[in-house]
Amino acid sequence: MLSLQKMEQQTLFIPDNDAEEIETDLVIVGGGPAGLSAGIYASRSGLKTVVLERNILGGQVALTPMVENYPGLTQIGGKKLVEILVSHALEYVHIFQGEEVLTVSPGRPLTITTNRRRFITRAMLLATGATHKHLGVPGESRLSGRGVSYCTTCDGPLFAGQKVVMVGGGDSAVTEALHLKNIGADVTVIHWTDKLDAQDVLAKQLKNSGIPILFNTVVKEISGEKSVESVTVLNTRTNETKKIETAGVFIAVGYLPSVDLADKIGVAKTPQGFIQQENYRTSVPGIYAAGDVVGGFNQIVTASGHGAEAALTIFRDLLNEPKA
Amino acid sequence: MLSLQKMEQQTLFIPDNDAEEIETDLVIVGGGPAGLSAGIYASRSGLKTVVLERNILGGQVALTPMVENYPGLTQIGGKKLVEILVSHALEYVHIFQGEEVLTVSPGRPLTITTNRRRFITRAMLLATGATHKHLGVPGESRLSGRGVSYCTTCDGPLFAGQKVVMVGGGDSAVTEALHLKNIGADVTVIHWTDKLDAQDVLAKQLKNSGIPILFNTVVKEISGEKSVESVTVLNTRTNETKKIETAGVFIAVGYLPSVDLADKIGVAKTPQGFIQQENYRTSVPGIYAAGDVVGGFNQIVTASGHGAEAALTIFRDLLNEPKA
Repeated sequence: MLSLQKMEQQTLFIPDNDAEEIETDLVIVGGGPAGLSAGIYASRSGLKTVVLERNILGGQVALTPMVENYPGLTQIGGKKLVEILVSHALEYVHIFQGEEVLTVSPGRPLTITTNRRRFITRAMLLATGATHKHLGVPGESRLSGRGVSYCTTCDGPLFAGQKVVMVGGGDSAVTEALHLKNIGADVTVIHWTDKLDAQDVLAKQLKNSGIPILFNTVVKEISGEKSVESVTVLNTRTNETKKIETAGVFIAVGYLPSVDLADKIGVAKTPQGFIQQENYRTSVPGIYAAGDVVGGFNQIVTASGHGAEAALTIFRDLLNEPKA
Repeated sequence: MLSLQKMEQQTLFIPDNDAEEIETDLVIVGGGPAGLSAGIYASRSGLKTVVLERNILGGQVALTPMVENYPGLTQIGGKKLVEILVSHALEYVHIFQGEEVLTVSPGRPLTITTNRRRFITRAMLLATGATHKHLGVPGESRLSGRGVSYCTTCDGPLFAGQKVVMVGGGDSAVTEALHLKNIGADVTVIHWTDKLDAQDVLAKQLKNSGIPILFNTVVKEISGEKSVESVTVLNTRTNETKKIETAGVFIAVGYLPSVDLADKIGVAKTPQGFIQQENYRTSVPGIYAAGDVVGGFNQIVTASGHGAEAALTIFRDLLNEPKA
């Protein structure tokens, strides 16, 4: 709105940092894009909201060297983007960093115990995110963001016209290999068994694409000085080792949703291990979930959008329930 | 990625502005947040993509004075945000402005005729948006963004501690009135008949909230010099006119999805008149829909997220189909 003052400070919920018990409408667990966006939307809806993050703020974004596909920020370092999202969220919602949820007692309200205090809350949003599985080979971590990538959608376009390898043989690996070829990269798939784990239709598509597949092959090392130059692979049938020149190593060997807290609470999960939800509502009343922990496309803008939708859904649900 | 060059220009699809016929993978109709975000994601996936916008770029955002809830941009004018989103999209995708779709011939590929040319395309995304219904009374348009608002989620927080009126009696109006009260605004509902049109549970909630409701009442004029100062209302039963002092006039009398093109194509719609979709796929093969035209929370970040998801869904679907 033009020429109207900002939301007045006194209308915001500002919890006491030292309090042993805090009453809230909503506790958001996770300080990545989904949690921060939910925090903005929930507080702006008038819900007394806090965000808890046990580790570093920003989730996977904080580990992303460069982001080119968050609409509105053409090209921005992951750490810088986290700073911006956090400072936006802090305009509206208090973030407790280094605070870990230990137990959740069911009921309305819910009682949440952290390493520091108790929260008595009407609702809880699990936005605990997910992490990519790593290969655990020499060079992988050092060259991460320098040719090693876990996100084709994010980094693929940088490799048009260049040689890359895709490690993995499941749906994601196959889809992303086709994606890389589509973008104009010269891609080879490396898979550790003699058969792809992907759906038939995708496996056929991969075969028809002419993309070479190295079966029974594992990556032993990723090499390069300033950026990836080659991978050393072992054929487990012939026991032969060889070096493949490549500018990029895309890794899609699995995605691990962070569900340790969800498991403690006992919310239902999907066969793939993500938190099961419908319109962000989990199987446990009062407990919601959004972001990478529920699966989906794992993009910053999709997590931000879902965080906002989850917060607005919680706001509407709480309208229909007695106050704590 | 660190220290890697940007996507090379030659890998981008750059259509000829003067061509009478253009072959594409995807034609996106609508240059608002959903369409622009889809454009970024589709082009980055290697799909030959264009965005068509018959009117002004940015959709409803271009008409929004100030945006405070797009995560990452703490407080930004709507026009400025549109500029930023458009310039980001232009890094990846060609936008034809002033180009209107006239006919769509079904089949794979689809043939789209615009006021300027033909597109032969494998897929089409309808991101045609929606508009808020207006009251059509004196002062409404002049004071829009100066106290008159069609979006409580966006502008509500500015009115904490102030008097506002909510015009309307349906689900949105009632939900948003409760929202305004929750935020700390002193809200009165103005409804033109003697009964709310909202779901029972919401109507009860409104009654329990103590929010005053003026039934059988219509707004005749909105007044104020630099911003809203009062509304003139008429009681249609008693024929009495009175002036109510207020700082804000929130209007929720209906939302009109822009479905003229969808109707021409014949895609199925929901009972509320939005395009029906499941995972962005409409009832017509090859035709997808995302953003406000499918309903939902009508936020910039939710439209952007859904545009990205629609583009990635289209990319995956096209993998399984023969090329045009």
